[in-house]
Amino acid sequence: MTTRIVELRRGILKKNDELAAGLRLRFNAAGVLVLNLVSSPGTGKTAFLERTLRELLARGFRAAALVGDLETDNDARRLAASGAPVRQINTHGICHLDAEMISKHLAGWDTVTGANGAELAGLDFLFIENVGNLVCPSSYDLGEKIRVALLSVTEGEDKPLKYPTLFNSADAAVITKIDIAEPCDFDRTLALKNINEIRPGIKIFETSAKTGAGMEEWLAWLAAERAAPERLKS
Amino acid sequence: MTTRIVELRRGILKKNDELAAGLRLRFNAAGVLVLNLVSSPGTGKTAFLERTLRELLARGFRAAALVGDLETDNDARRLAASGAPVRQINTHGICHLDAEMISKHLAGWDTVTGANGAELAGLDFLFIENVGNLVCPSSYDLGEKIRVALLSVTEGEDKPLKYPTLFNSADAAVITKIDIAEPCDFDRTLALKNINEIRPGIKIFETSAKTGAGMEEWLAWLAAERAAPERLKS
Repeated sequence: MTTRIVELRRGILKKNDELAAGLRLRFNAAGVLVLNLVSSPGTGKTAFLERTLRELLARGFRAAALVGDLETDNDARRLAASGAPVRQINTHGICHLDAEMISKHLAGWDTVTGANGAELAGLDFLFIENVGNLVCPSSYDLGEKIRVALLSVTEGEDKPLKYPTLFNSADAAVITKIDIAEPCDFDRTLALKNINEIRPGIKIFETSAKTGAGMEEWLAWLAAERAAPERLKS
Repeated sequence: MTTRIVELRRGILKKNDELAAGLRLRFNAAGVLVLNLVSSPGTGKTAFLERTLRELLARGFRAAALVGDLETDNDARRLAASGAPVRQINTHGICHLDAEMISKHLAGWDTVTGANGAELAGLDFLFIENVGNLVCPSSYDLGEKIRVALLSVTEGEDKPLKYPTLFNSADAAVITKIDIAEPCDFDRTLALKNINEIRPGIKIFETSAKTGAGMEEWLAWLAAERAAPERLKS
C-alpha cells in the first residue's frame, strides 16, 4: 500500500510543480514579490503578517494576502484589519495549500481594483499564509519567490531538526514572540545553531509582533528583496 | 484529481480502521489502557508525557510509550529518562502515525520483558505520542481507547474552532504550559468556551509539566479510567 501512496503522491507533486511554475511566471510578469509563510499552528503567523501588512502599507507599499485555513475566516478577518486586501482559502480538511488553490483564489485579482480589491500587477507584495503545519506545506511549491519558516520561542529549539524538510526548503527564518523568550526559557543560541545546522547561512529574523522588536530589519529586508533584480527560483 | 485523491484516501482510512479495530481487540485482551496524544508541534506533548510516565511509575503503575516523529529520536530519549520503556517511530516524512506503524512497533512487546522491555499484557498504560500536527492524525484511528487533544497557552484560543476534527474526535483535552499563561495573555475563559463549543462536556485538564500544576487531577483520572470496566470505543 505504501508504494502505491508514494507513487500517487509523486504524481500529485509533479502536477503541483507544473502549476506552480506557471504561477511563478505570472507573478514575475506582474512584478509582485510573493512570499509563502509556513509554521506550526500557534506560532503567530497571523499576528506577524498583520503587523507586516500594516507597516508596509504605512510605508506606501501595496501588499495583499491569501490565507489558508481548514475552517473559519478568523485569520482573514484579523489580517483585513491591516487595511490590505485579503482572501481566505478554506481547505476543508486538507492540511496544506497547493498551487491549484492559489490559482483559483487569484481569479479576478488580475482585473479587480478598488478599496478592498487588488490588481496583481499593482501589488508590490503578495503574502500567502499557509495552513499551520510543519510537514506537508514544505512539499507544495506555490510559485512563491521566498519561503519563510516561522518558529516561536514557545515551541522548543529542536523544531528545525525534527522538521528538516521545512527549514531545508526555506529562504528565510523568522523567530516570533521574542517578548516572551524569558518565561519560555528559550535557548536562543541553541535555536540559531539548529536552524543553521539544517540550512547553513539562512537569513534569520528575531521578532515580536507585539512589541515591534525586529520588525524594522524584516521590513528593510523585504523592501530590498522587492527592489532586487528579478531572479527565478530554481 | 481531487476526486481520485478523496477516493484513495477513503480506501486508506478504511484499511487503517480495520487494522485499528484489530489493535483495539488486542489492547483490550492485554488489559492495557491505550492513549493517543495529539497536538501541534511545540505544544509540549513530550514534557507532559515524560512527567506523566515518571509519576505513574512512582505510583507503581507500569507504563510505556511509542513516540512518532518525522526524524530524530530526541523525543524517545527524553521520554526514556522517565524510566519507562519507550520506542521511537520515525515516519520519514509522513505527517501522522497510522495503525500499521503501531502494529509493527509493537512487535516483540508481547513477549519481551526485562529492564527496558515491556510485555503488552504486563502494562497498565501505553501512551502513543503522535507526530506534531493538528490535521491528519485526527483521521487515523490507532486502536486507542482515549484520544487526548493538547493545546498550549501559547497557541491562541481559537485552535479548537480552526481544527475542529481533532477536538471533535478527542475524549479529553489538556491545556499545557499554564505556568506561562500570563505573559502569553492567555484568555482561559475563551479557550474553555471554544473547546466546549466543538466538543460539549469534554473533560479538560489545565496543566504545567514544569510546575506540576494540574498533574494530580490528570493522574487520578488516568487511574480511574484504567480501573473502569472495559468499554469498546464505538
